[in-house]
Amino acid sequence: MDDQIIYRPIGTIHSLFKEAKKMPIQPAAAKGIKGTVDIKPEFKNGLKDLDGFSHIILLYHLHLSRGFSLEVVPFLDDKLRGVFATRAPRRPNAIGLSIVRLVDIEENRLYIQNVDVVDGTPLLDIKPYVPEFDDHKAERIGWLSDKIDKMREIKADERFI
Amino acid sequence: MDDQIIYRPIGTIHSLFKEAKKMPIQPAAAKGIKGTVDIKPEFKNGLKDLDGFSHIILLYHLHLSRGFSLEVVPFLDDKLRGVFATRAPRRPNAIGLSIVRLVDIEENRLYIQNVDVVDGTPLLDIKPYVPEFDDHKAERIGWLSDKIDKMREIKADERFI
Repeated sequence: MDDQIIYRPIGTIHSLFKEAKKMPIQPAAAKGIKGTVDIKPEFKNGLKDLDGFSHIILLYHLHLSRGFSLEVVPFLDDKLRGVFATRAPRRPNAIGLSIVRLVDIEENRLYIQNVDVVDGTPLLDIKPYVPEFDDHKAERIGWLSDKIDKMREIKADERFI
Repeated sequence: MDDQIIYRPIGTIHSLFKEAKKMPIQPAAAKGIKGTVDIKPEFKNGLKDLDGFSHIILLYHLHLSRGFSLEVVPFLDDKLRGVFATRAPRRPNAIGLSIVRLVDIEENRLYIQNVDVVDGTPLLDIKPYVPEFDDHKAERIGWLSDKIDKMREIKADERFI
């Protein structure tokens, strides 16, 4: 296929979660949970100035996800929803996004908090989190409106693996 | 390389910006600027329930970017910064992220606002924007601290193409 886009991991995310089961389902439900990111040595110089930011955006490949479904039952719901209206991993392009706290950087290792990512996940990109770019007053959050309060109670299970 | 990750576009972003030059540099500087997203028909069912959300996260391939630099001079600065501490497109994996307002969905076309994306950009993923997941009180925004006010004045140029 001539429309394929090829990326290569710039590093690996490490966490206490050896499997997706029972993992918190969003960084907001993973407050204080620690992890590390090991950046490949050849990309180390790209980390310059990152230590000035309290939060960073991690984009990663959801490597445990196989194939995709256009409709999924998300962890927070019991109905089928369009996959693009969810954060479920069974997506056509299995890219995950988490905004985590950056605690420290030592050489090519990042120490992070609020980690909702499974150990060994390949990292694709890091971006600085900037509220002036990234915070929005969302008036509507669709099917999540009456379910968001359950976010901290519900853990992931194996439905997407 | 056995560590390559292959994605394929799920659609195309359309905007008034035929080239990167003079484009707003973030959605926050592109308030009201309209665009559309055409999703490939085979992915249309994945859009179900998305219309309930006022804002969505677009992940796309920065297709005009060739190669990468580990240190770049961002549009908002005059100093070299580590690329992962910037939103510059010349990244090892050229993934772009914009949070835009979702105005309407008709069939497989999304009508969006606050568009800072060049016309013809291949779309990789859509996620619902959920403040409870995505808003963070960032205490520090590094090198951007004394430059963020210039965001609406400064336009992109051709430095990353």
